[in-house]
Formats: sequence, structure tokens, C-alpha cells
Amino acid sequence: MNIGFIGLGNMGSGMARRLIDAGHTLTVYNRTRRRAEPFRALGIDVADTIRDAAAKADVLISMVADDQAVEEVVFPPGDALHALPSGAVHVSMSTVSVAMSRRLADAHHEGRQHYVGAPVFGRPEAAASGKLFVVAAGPDDQVRRCQPVFDAVGQKTFNVGSDAPAANVIKLAGNFMISAMIESLAESVALARKHEVDPHVLLDVLTGSLFSAPIYRTYGSILLEQKFDPPGFKLPLGMKDNTLVLEAAQAARVSMPVASLLHDHFVTALAMGLGESDWSAVARVTYRNAGL
Amino acid sequence: MNIGFIGLGNMGSGMARRLIDAGHTLTVYNRTRRRAEPFRALGIDVADTIRDAAAKADVLISMVADDQAVEEVVFPPGDALHALPSGAVHVSMSTVSVAMSRRLADAHHEGRQHYVGAPVFGRPEAAASGKLFVVAAGPDDQVRRCQPVFDAVGQKTFNVGSDAPAANVIKLAGNFMISAMIESLAESVALARKHEVDPHVLLDVLTGSLFSAPIYRTYGSILLEQKFDPPGFKLPLGMKDNTLVLEAAQAARVSMPVASLLHDHFVTALAMGLGESDWSAVARVTYRNAGL
Amino acid sequence: MNIGFIGLGNMGSGMARRLIDAGHTLTVYNRTRRRAEPFRALGIDVADTIRDAAAKADVLISMVADDQAVEEVVFPPGDALHALPSGAVHVSMSTVSVAMSRRLADAHHEGRQHYVGAPVFGRPEAAASGKLFVVAAGPDDQVRRCQPVFDAVGQKTFNVGSDAPAANVIKLAGNFMISAMIESLAESVALARKHEVDPHVLLDVLTGSLFSAPIYRTYGSILLEQKFDPPGFKLPLGMKDNTLVLEAAQAARVSMPVASLLHDHFVTALAMGLGESDWSAVARVTYRNAGL
Amino acid sequence: MNIGFIGLGNMGSGMARRLIDAGHTLTVYNRTRRRAEPFRALGIDVADTIRDAAAKADVLISMVADDQAVEEVVFPPGDALHALPSGAVHVSMSTVSVAMSRRLADAHHEGRQHYVGAPVFGRPEAAASGKLFVVAAGPDDQVRRCQPVFDAVGQKTFNVGSDAPAANVIKLAGNFMISAMIESLAESVALARKHEVDPHVLLDVLTGSLFSAPIYRTYGSILLEQKFDPPGFKLPLGMKDNTLVLEAAQAARVSMPVASLLHDHFVTALAMGLGESDWSAVARVTYRNAGL
Repeated sequence: MNIGFIGLGNMGSGMARRLIDAGHTLTVYNRTRRRAEPFRALGIDVADTIRDAAAKADVLISMVADDQAVEEVVFPPGDALHALPSGAVHVSMSTVSVAMSRRLADAHHEGRQHYVGAPVFGRPEAAASGKLFVVAAGPDDQVRRCQPVFDAVGQKTFNVGSDAPAANVIKLAGNFMISAMIESLAESVALARKHEVDPHVLLDVLTGSLFSAPIYRTYGSILLEQKFDPPGFKLPLGMKDNTLVLEAAQAARVSMPVASLLHDHFVTALAMGLGESDWSAVARVTYRNAGL
Repeated sequence: MNIGFIGLGNMGSGMARRLIDAGHTLTVYNRTRRRAEPFRALGIDVADTIRDAAAKADVLISMVADDQAVEEVVFPPGDALHALPSGAVHVSMSTVSVAMSRRLADAHHEGRQHYVGAPVFGRPEAAASGKLFVVAAGPDDQVRRCQPVFDAVGQKTFNVGSDAPAANVIKLAGNFMISAMIESLAESVALARKHEVDPHVLLDVLTGSLFSAPIYRTYGSILLEQKFDPPGFKLPLGMKDNTLVLEAAQAARVSMPVASLLHDHFVTALAMGLGESDWSAVARVTYRNAGL
Repeated sequence: MNIGFIGLGNMGSGMARRLIDAGHTLTVYNRTRRRAEPFRALGIDVADTIRDAAAKADVLISMVADDQAVEEVVFPPGDALHALPSGAVHVSMSTVSVAMSRRLADAHHEGRQHYVGAPVFGRPEAAASGKLFVVAAGPDDQVRRCQPVFDAVGQKTFNVGSDAPAANVIKLAGNFMISAMIESLAESVALARKHEVDPHVLLDVLTGSLFSAPIYRTYGSILLEQKFDPPGFKLPLGMKDNTLVLEAAQAARVSMPVASLLHDHFVTALAMGLGESDWSAVARVTYRNAGL
Repeated sequence: MNIGFIGLGNMGSGMARRLIDAGHTLTVYNRTRRRAEPFRALGIDVADTIRDAAAKADVLISMVADDQAVEEVVFPPGDALHALPSGAVHVSMSTVSVAMSRRLADAHHEGRQHYVGAPVFGRPEAAASGKLFVVAAGPDDQVRRCQPVFDAVGQKTFNVGSDAPAANVIKLAGNFMISAMIESLAESVALARKHEVDPHVLLDVLTGSLFSAPIYRTYGSILLEQKFDPPGFKLPLGMKDNTLVLEAAQAARVSMPVASLLHDHFVTALAMGLGESDWSAVARVTYRNAGL
């Protein structure tokens, strides 16, 4: 499969390597050229422009930072929209807004191309080892067409329907659920510590009984050891996703008070200088409020 | 083992039967006599007073509604404290306040008896089938002494240390975690529905990826089908536990904003007339706010 | 008028002096005897017991710290209820709970006495200079009977109806309104300061246009100069009133999210060690969250 | 003074008339031409384009709906920036974002023009009767130059410094203060009503004692009579200002939890179908939560 791959950050680099290992033919592009060098060293085609990366692709994958970045890829200056052959498919795997996903779907439809929304759950380690969870939505035949891509990067693909933005709604809801879990766990840990109960014991009980999902163990350990650095997912990115879920909620007239509370705590965390830490460092707001 | 068992409600009845099945000798007591009749029919000793239930016990188990109920069991009028033999142990398995647990520990210590805090996680079905999770704290030899009791009613016992109230802190934190999960899930479901995303698909993604703990499936299903009646755990009881965690937090000077938010929603739920529904019906507040 | 006066704290002392100056005959009582000495020095009758203070009174005034204190005055050990002559009136001027006011009204009714709820707005300076605002409720003839008392301590009396607890509802709502104003002003001041806008200019605009009430100037000045010490009204007392309003709200099934937010901030303020400061020091929570 | 006046909505129309009555020479412009007709009928110069309105102006006043509207006035397509003579001053009286005010200040500076931020407090009646409060910031000589404008439309001008965006910070803070007052008053009214206390009595006490500012009486009356229609200031506009203050707060890393709470309530109010009502109808959320 001829794949154009845009965005070689922490997540994208790992994903691109998995695709190469799976035997696909890639043309990669990254705004900061330096990050593409390791791929050139492997003999991979490195495009000078987004248009070049898109021009020969059956599948164009974008894995970039945010709405603005994907906008600059698809519309001018990047203009993948005009370079991508008719009949090709753009798989947008970044975490972008529901509104942007809608806009991309419409633009590609007009351009006689296809569009699949396929954001992923998982940290860079999971991307590099093909252990992501892929949430895909779009025309059924196109999602099927992209299945080899998803198989290369993910441990599991969820096909969530024919309307691409649905994948983005679910991705944003999922990230919100994680952030809500971090906040409630931080409050519980603070309660335990101030009552002189060992928070490791609390965590053992929670993860050994009702909350046996691995994510509780992962973040539980980070919260207890306060290992917020180096970050797996930087706090400003977590805050960006919080903003996206609040915007999607406002657009649909849904009040999400736990998301609003997290907004306030993210802002406070930035004021505390935690902008370079992992997003779970938002727990520090709750710890400090408790005098810890 | 001679066991005095106080409190034959939905939870207590199932637990008492499990203890009988395990071969222990029980003397049971319930304030409302009618609920003790099935035990009398089985040939079990039914005490007329709490003192009678406590007088011959090695282990006195209390499984009652709240602080006031356990206070009336241990202190006059029930006065188990004076009836319980020296050297016996009171195992308090109800969800009570941290402060009450401390008071009971002190009183039994003065009375030359022992005290173990052993609240449980699980609904009535789990109690009846021995599938509870037991969180036990108290002097190590006493917790070991009670292990046969815990084995009869639970699938797993967590020994969380020698200070009995620690078990209550952890129990309250656990219930808070469940309530926070319910609220955040309700917000996510509302977001999905208003964006015309099938919430079953959302739930499948969440429980099939990061949130694979059974409790997400259990409450997820209740929230999606809105099966809040009949209740497994009534909303006013959930609200009581929310009050207990906020009191414990205030006493230790810990701010728990998600718990405060749930307080507000529980109050609204009562104003909506949901006092006879399951506590997860608090989700209806969030649904209604979204116009659902 | 023969007045028994219970409670010679910061507020009560000033009020008692105003009543003496107005020509009334007082018998005063304070739990800590030392605080009654200045009155003895003036030739005022100092009672040894609450019963003695109540026994000869036409009007018994209580101005004490909280529910527990007024309970100990009216019921044993203080037992004013049995000492107060039939036909006399108890004027409860403390800030107590709505439930306690109801209980006192009922008890005095059974004791063939009268009961007027008459909490006040104003700080100790206002009490000493007769500038309080009195919110009075009770049987109309009894409120009229007490008017000379209110005239001595207050600049204005609001007769809010025949049901005494109504006065307490209004008093609690008023204190809540002040606390909400403090919090919103603190947020605005933080916003201005972080945008390098002089907060004095902000305050001048607010108080010079829409928010011309003196209380904005008073608290505005405290918040800008951060003059939280010495306290006019200690933070734990403010927190107590916040608890009372939340309890009254819960009892009537009213969700008050701004009050819940203030609860969280008061708890954090205590964890910050502000327990000896003025209640408006709760603003420090908001300032610190903003990195100020 | 030659004044170009852009924006003849509810506020702008009244302000323009006041300026005409004060003897100034106006050229008016409104996107929807129909709204300019009454001015043409008065013999006032109605421009066909924004450029025409700006070309001869000493002072260009903009009073439009939001950031986007002012952007379209100053930059292309409206392009007032290039039409406005060197040395002229643009007085932006709309409620716009702090960021937009900064951008306008910079653009006019580059264009050798002047820029004054001068948002106003007051409803359409106040605009029509010259009773607005004007909050002006900009180079001191320019603010002085515009004083005749402010005198014509306002009862009072606050000069808040030489940096134009400061005026916008203060305007947004002021609107936030009003919204916080509405919310806390709504909570108090709900508390009173559920305790069967006449809320008129509550309002009389509040406005007759500590909260004597006219705005408490104005909004108090609206909240008690639930006269949310016809609107003085529509709910979506109030929500827009809430968004602006949250954005300004986030940019400066200030957590404003009361503003976040209002965000949630505005969203709920829209879901309740209150988009055509006055912004104070946000109180209905609190009323409904209380079962009222």
C-alpha cells in the first residue's frame, strides 16, 4: 500500500516505523525536517512538501498536534486536498475537534476523496509497539480498506460507524474519562494521606477489587510516586483535549461539570509552572489544596 | 465459631446465610423482627435483644444502615459493649464514618474487647454469593482471627493495617471513586447522545480498551438502559456515603471538588423525586441538564 | 425592661453595652467569667448561672457562637427553658441553624414562653455603635415587644414574618451572598492583576458604577490590601455559616453550587493555615491558584 | 467633531442619537441597511461602506456584536484601517476580547492612527438616555480627545490607563461580577422559596442592608417575577461574555471557578430552550435544580 505519512512526532514516528515493518511503502513528511532524518537513513522516501507526500498516496495518514496543524496540512499552505489523488483516503489519526473532523470529511467528499477519522488511545510506547487502540469511523468500505494500517499500529480497532466525526467524539470522551479518573484518584489519595492511610494500600484495594483496569494501576503509580517527569503526554496537550471536549459539549449543549472542574485545575497547574510535566501532574493542584 | 450477627437487611441476610453455610454457630438479631423469621425457620437462634446476641459471641458482627444505627447497637439502648465478653471481637462491616469507627475502636479497647473495621464492597447479590470484597483493619491477630468470617462472605480480603478506621477511609474513598465514575460516564454518554453517537458504541470502546474493569460495564449498562429501578443501592444511601466522605475530608482538611459536585447532583436528584431509585440515577441530573 | 443577656463575646459585649446605655436593666452571663468582669465593674448584675440570668427576665437574649452553645443555654445544663418565666420571650440573635431555630421555637412554645429569631448583620464595630441590621421573625406582638432591644443595637429592623426560623434562613442567605461576593471579587482581582491592570482601578470602576454598595468597598479594600489580620470575623466562623447554609439547602433539597465551591475553598484555606485570619482570606485560595 | 459610527443595533442606535443631539456630525453605517433608515430620515449621512464611514472621521466609533464583527470592520472586507485618516482615533466601544483589543491597538499604531478601548456598562435604555458608564483606556491625550463622545452617551467615564486592553479586562470582569451576582441570588431565592420564606422579603432585607446597589434591585426583581422576556440582554450574548472572560483568564493563567460554573449553567439554559430570553434566565437552571 502506498502511504503518505504526515507528522513524525513522538506518536507518529513509532506508528510510521510499524507501517514500514509491516511492509508498506511510505513517503513521510515532517514540518521540522530534522525529525525525518532517521527515516531517510533507513532509505525511506522523505517528501519536501506535503503535496509531494500526498501526490502518490493511496492512503494519506496525518498524525499532527492539533486542529491548526491538520488545517495547514489539508488546506493551503500544505494543500494535501488538491494533491491527493481522486479515490484516495485521508486517515486523520490526530486528536482533533469534532468540528474540524466534520470540515475535513466535507472537504474530501467534495474533492472526490475519502475521509476516515481514526484517533487512537495510547502513549508513545504503545505506538512504537503496535499496542494502540484505534477508534475508526467513516464509510465502511474505506474503514475496511485501512484495516492493514490499523493492524500495524494497534492491538484492536473499533469500527464506530460511517460518520467520521463520531470517532472524534469517542476519542474526546475517552480522554475526558481518563482525566476524570486522575482527578478523582488524586482526591482519594489526598484523603488517604491526610488520614495517615498508606495510599499504596488504597491503590491495591481499588485495583484489586472494583477498579481492576490497567489504567488505574498506571496512573495510580504515577500519582503515588509523583513521577510526573519526564512526561508521557504533556500537560498543555491534556489541557488542549479538555478544551476540545468542552467545545464539543457546548456545541451540542451538554453541560460537563467535571470537565469544567478539570479546566480550572489545568489552568492552575500551568500557573504552578507544570507546563513541562505529564498531564497527570494536574493532581498536584489537589495535593497542594490539601496542604500536601 | 460463635457469632453474634446484628442487622439482617439486604446485605446482612445474605452474609449471615453464608456464615451458616460455612458451619458457624450464629445468634442473629434484627430491629424489625419480621426479617429474622426466615432464620428462625432454619433453626437459627434469634435473639430478643442485642445484649442476648452479644453475650455468648466470640465474634460480634454488625451490618447496619448508618452511624446512628451502629451507635444504638454498641452503646445504650443496645449496649452490646457491656454484653460482649472480654476478649471477644466486634467486626463492624457497615459503611460508617471514620469518626464513628475511631469511637468504637476506643470504646471496645476500654471494654477489654477487640475491634475490627471491615466494610465491604459489593451489592446484595455479591453478599449472598460470597463474592464481596472485604477491607479489614485492626490488630493483626484479630484480623487473622476473623479470616474465616471474611472467607465465608468475600472473594478477597484486603488487610489494610492495624488501625481500624483506615478501613473506613478506604471504603469511603472507594464509594467516592464509583460515584465519580458514574458522573463522568453520564457526562460522556450525554455528549455522545447529543452528537448522535450511539452510546453503546462508546461504552464498547471504553470497556474494550482502557476501562476494562467490570464496574464500568455494570454501571455503563445501567446508565444506558436507564434501569435505575428497582434499586441495588438506594440514592439516599449513596448520598449518605457522599456526606461521610465529605465529612472525613473536611476533618482532615482535604478539598474534594468532585465529591462536592456529586453532593449538588444528589440534592438535585432528590428534588427530582429519585429518592427510591438506584444511586446511579444521579446520572439523570446530567441527562436532564443536556436536554435529554 | 428586665433583660437577661447570655454571651459576652465580641458581638455580645457591644450589644449589651448599647442596651445598658438605652436604660434597660440587664443581668448578664458569660461562660468564661472573665469576660463579664467589665460589666460587674459598671455595677451590672452578673449571674453565676444561666438559670439566674433567665429567672427574672422579661426578655432573654442569647448571642453565642453556634448551635451547640445555644443548645447548652436553653436545654440542660444551662436550662434557661425551665428558669425563664412563663410569658417571657427568648430572643435568639446568634447565627444558628434553621433546624435549631425550629427546635427552640417549639420548646419555648411548649414552655408557655415566646421565641423570636433575630440574627443580625454587622461586625463588632457595628454592634458597639448600634449600627447592626436586625432580621426579626416571630409572633408579631412579640417582635413589637422586642423593638426597643432592636432599636438599641441596630440601625434598622426587618420584620420578616411570624415564623421565627424564616429570620435564620434570611441571615444564612445573606452571609452566603457576602461569601459569594468575596469569591467573585477575588477571581476578578486575580484576573486584573495577571493582566497587569491595577486592581484599585478595577475596584473604583465597580464601586463607582454598578456595585455601589458599601460592602463592595469594605471587602474590596480588604482583598486588595490583603488585610486579613486581625480578623473581623474568623474564617472558621465563616466556614460554619457556609456549613449551615448547605445543611439548610440540603434539608429543603436545594442545590447551591456556589456555596459548595466556597466549602471547598474554605477547607483549602484551613489547610493553608488561615484559621486565625478573617474569613475573606478565603480569597487567598483563588490568588494562589492564579500564581499570585 | 466628525464621527464615523459603525453598528446601529440596540445599543448603537441610542448612542448615535445621543451624539447627534450633542451636535456632532455623524456618518453612520450598519451592515443591515434597514437599521440605518431612521437616521437617513433625520438627514444624517448614511455610508454605503465602512470605508466611506471612516474616510472623513476624526473619531471612528465601533459598537458591534463581537470579535468577528469588529474584525470585519477594521480589517478587510470592511478595511476601516486603511480608510481612516492618519491621526484619527478608533474608539472601540463593543465588548470584545482582550486579545482582539490588543490586536486592534497594534494595527492602528502601525497605521499611524490612535486606538481607545471604551466598552460600556448599561442596557439599551441607558444608552438612549446617556446613562451608560464608560470604561476608557488608551493614550491619555486620545482619551481626553474623546471625552465629548463619552459625555454624550455616559453618566460617568472611568479613565483606566494608557493601555487600551485594560478597559476590556475591566469590562469583562464587571460582566462576570453581574453574572456571579445573578447566580448567587438565584441560589438564595431558591433556598428561601423551598423554606417557605417569601423571596420578596429576602430581597428587601438584602437591598435594604448590605446589598444596597441598584443592580441588586434590578436583577432581584427580574429573578423574583421571572420576567426574562423580552430580554434586555440576550442569553447567548451573556454566554459570549462568559466565554471571553474565561479565555482572558486562561491566557493569563487564572482559574475562575465561578465563571466555569456559570459556563455550565449557560449551556444548560440553552439546552432548556432559553436562547431568546434575558441572560438572567440562567437562574432557571438553579430553580429547576431545586424542583421549582
